[in-house]
Amino acid sequence: MKPLPCSEERLERIAKRYGTPFHLYDEAGIRENVRRLQAAFAWNSGFKEYFAVKANPNPYLLEILRDEGCAADCSSPAELVLANAVGWSGEEILFSSNNTTPEEYAQAHRLGAIINVDDISHVDGLRAQNTLPDCICFRYNPGKSGIGNDIIGEPHEAKYGMTRTQILQAVRWAREAGIRRIGLHTMVVSNELSEDALAATAEMMFMLAVEVQQDSDVRVEMIDLGGGIGIPYHPSETAVSYARYGKRVQTLFERYLRPQGLGETAVWLECGRAITGPYGWLVTRAIRHKDTYKQYVGVDASMADLMRPGMYGAYHHITVAGASEPATQYYDIVGSLCENNDKFAINRRLPVIREGDILVIHDTGAHGYAMGFNYNGKLRSKELLLTAEGDVRCIRRAETLTDYFATLDYPGLP
Amino acid sequence: MKPLPCSEERLERIAKRYGTPFHLYDEAGIRENVRRLQAAFAWNSGFKEYFAVKANPNPYLLEILRDEGCAADCSSPAELVLANAVGWSGEEILFSSNNTTPEEYAQAHRLGAIINVDDISHVDGLRAQNTLPDCICFRYNPGKSGIGNDIIGEPHEAKYGMTRTQILQAVRWAREAGIRRIGLHTMVVSNELSEDALAATAEMMFMLAVEVQQDSDVRVEMIDLGGGIGIPYHPSETAVSYARYGKRVQTLFERYLRPQGLGETAVWLECGRAITGPYGWLVTRAIRHKDTYKQYVGVDASMADLMRPGMYGAYHHITVAGASEPATQYYDIVGSLCENNDKFAINRRLPVIREGDILVIHDTGAHGYAMGFNYNGKLRSKELLLTAEGDVRCIRRAETLTDYFATLDYPGLP
Repeated sequence: MKPLPCSEERLERIAKRYGTPFHLYDEAGIRENVRRLQAAFAWNSGFKEYFAVKANPNPYLLEILRDEGCAADCSSPAELVLANAVGWSGEEILFSSNNTTPEEYAQAHRLGAIINVDDISHVDGLRAQNTLPDCICFRYNPGKSGIGNDIIGEPHEAKYGMTRTQILQAVRWAREAGIRRIGLHTMVVSNELSEDALAATAEMMFMLAVEVQQDSDVRVEMIDLGGGIGIPYHPSETAVSYARYGKRVQTLFERYLRPQGLGETAVWLECGRAITGPYGWLVTRAIRHKDTYKQYVGVDASMADLMRPGMYGAYHHITVAGASEPATQYYDIVGSLCENNDKFAINRRLPVIREGDILVIHDTGAHGYAMGFNYNGKLRSKELLLTAEGDVRCIRRAETLTDYFATLDYPGLP
Repeated sequence: MKPLPCSEERLERIAKRYGTPFHLYDEAGIRENVRRLQAAFAWNSGFKEYFAVKANPNPYLLEILRDEGCAADCSSPAELVLANAVGWSGEEILFSSNNTTPEEYAQAHRLGAIINVDDISHVDGLRAQNTLPDCICFRYNPGKSGIGNDIIGEPHEAKYGMTRTQILQAVRWAREAGIRRIGLHTMVVSNELSEDALAATAEMMFMLAVEVQQDSDVRVEMIDLGGGIGIPYHPSETAVSYARYGKRVQTLFERYLRPQGLGETAVWLECGRAITGPYGWLVTRAIRHKDTYKQYVGVDASMADLMRPGMYGAYHHITVAGASEPATQYYDIVGSLCENNDKFAINRRLPVIREGDILVIHDTGAHGYAMGFNYNGKLRSKELLLTAEGDVRCIRRAETLTDYFATLDYPGLP
């Protein structure tokens, strides 16, 4: 039902060679996906996808995205270092953080990154520390706007961004400070599959840009609609059509911006999940079957490798490789953490699973490895890339005990 | 209201010297706490507290616990290595895991650890791989017993342990395999403040021990009541009285076990949270104030340092060091992750907080550092110990970018 990165026989060979568990990413799928997104926004000459590095901070994947013309959305010093190592620089980097220190702003400034300012209180600091960028972006939070969703919560409960009044104030401040190039940013939905909600965000931002122009005579150069494009984790869900979404944004652009002389405004996205999410799979092996009050299948991956089901109760589809029988069993698929939410699936209907079977957990290409922890002394898995040429390449080794104990100087530890 | 580890002036000096954020642990408090627990169970000659290493896997703290006569409850290979380095060996180590591999059992066996078997299906494997321990323990899951709580869930929904029928079967198997020393284990509540619920667990286990004896004529040598003693995270909550709890367990012991000739049975606990939880504080500095639809105080710690509020919505009390004004403000106390649940407190009434103020987050001595992650490229904090002699000692350094990038071989990274 949901696609696998390669044949089940090949998966088994990869698992034998590299050992389970591992995340496997599909380069060709990622490239094709980015191109589709770019094609849907080709009507906008300044369009740019700033990939949200937090979603998958593996430099080998970032390199692919850079090669496809993406830029980088960074939220921390580590991500700035990573983006820079991959070869992004200057305005190919958007530093979009919150609760940011002056040192972090200075680091972003040294790279020439575009600063996305989260709060009005930061602007005077930027001037004081002499780190005014050429190009600045202000993050908008619409408050009780009716936009927002379950994951990100109601915007007025979210810690991000500025009110409308503050945005207008920040733009005036920027103009007075001599910054000529100004952008607007928002991120009010996350993992959103409704094209209506995504289009509503665009409409809100385009109206804001017009208001900014009318208020302070500043032309908004770019509008970052944030990420938020969801992916169909469940087979019953439907992916967002980039083509339709792009078309709707274009219609709104023509309605609101062009008549105001804002036809040159660049539209940016900072998707993470939608770009790499569906092109990553966590491959794990069934190692135990347990029959108590329920049927459990224990696998060799755990929450350390994929936190979303445990943390959010999120659904991730699971394919039992090589299973030809129908799905007649109800299983809890569990890791080995001593934490009862270490379950990849609860009461999931699946074919009979035997010890040694390969289980493929879908859609782990974003917020998978990135969110792993070491609770219970668990070590995080490796990451493999199925290259566009069809080879398999290890792009991150598994953690070792030496990594786990690295911050300790205690005698006798590896 | 809630105690601090030292004066607020000293906290400020420590923060200046070591830099925030850090977890600070109080050796004297931990020692005194363990002694109180041991005193409450002194009526039982075999009493032992097997500290749940997962709660705080810092070897310098484990050393203190070992010095106080605690043993170690380990759930993974990394924790076995750690316990061994600290000096625990043989039956001072309980290997209590689930979904366990044969390699993990072999590692525990080499250390002479007591094996706590989670599932009936594991027993034949132990024999087959020739890793039968001298002393074996079986983990009980009572199913729909009415015992269990919010955190651990209903036992029949938990992945741990065996049914009553399986326990009886496992004991018979052990007897036939020639294992003479047998224990029973359970863990059906977590962070439980009700002495009734804790006592109910003891009663359930004592009745099971009697049933095992009647069924297979095997004398249960030890009964591990699990951890599960809660701590009063909220000031309105009351700590469990070890003395009363110990007394109640003693009464049940005398009622159920002694009349059956089981008066020599050892009672064990494997507390983690109750032992170190209240003696750890996450010390962080307010770095930003933000005023939008709510009042936000940004601090320099984040979910990377303490996951419980974000993951479970758990309450952690916060003291503003040096504040003499009454608590008149309502703040969200937030970290800098680009994740809206990176909040240590929501709508918390606190005194006015100024940038630079030290905020002390209470009760981080268990499941604090241990559950940290590196999402958004965030680095985990250092750990400091306030020694019994009154000195401050760094017992774990903060993570660096080199640690963060350690599993990558990408050119140009630190």
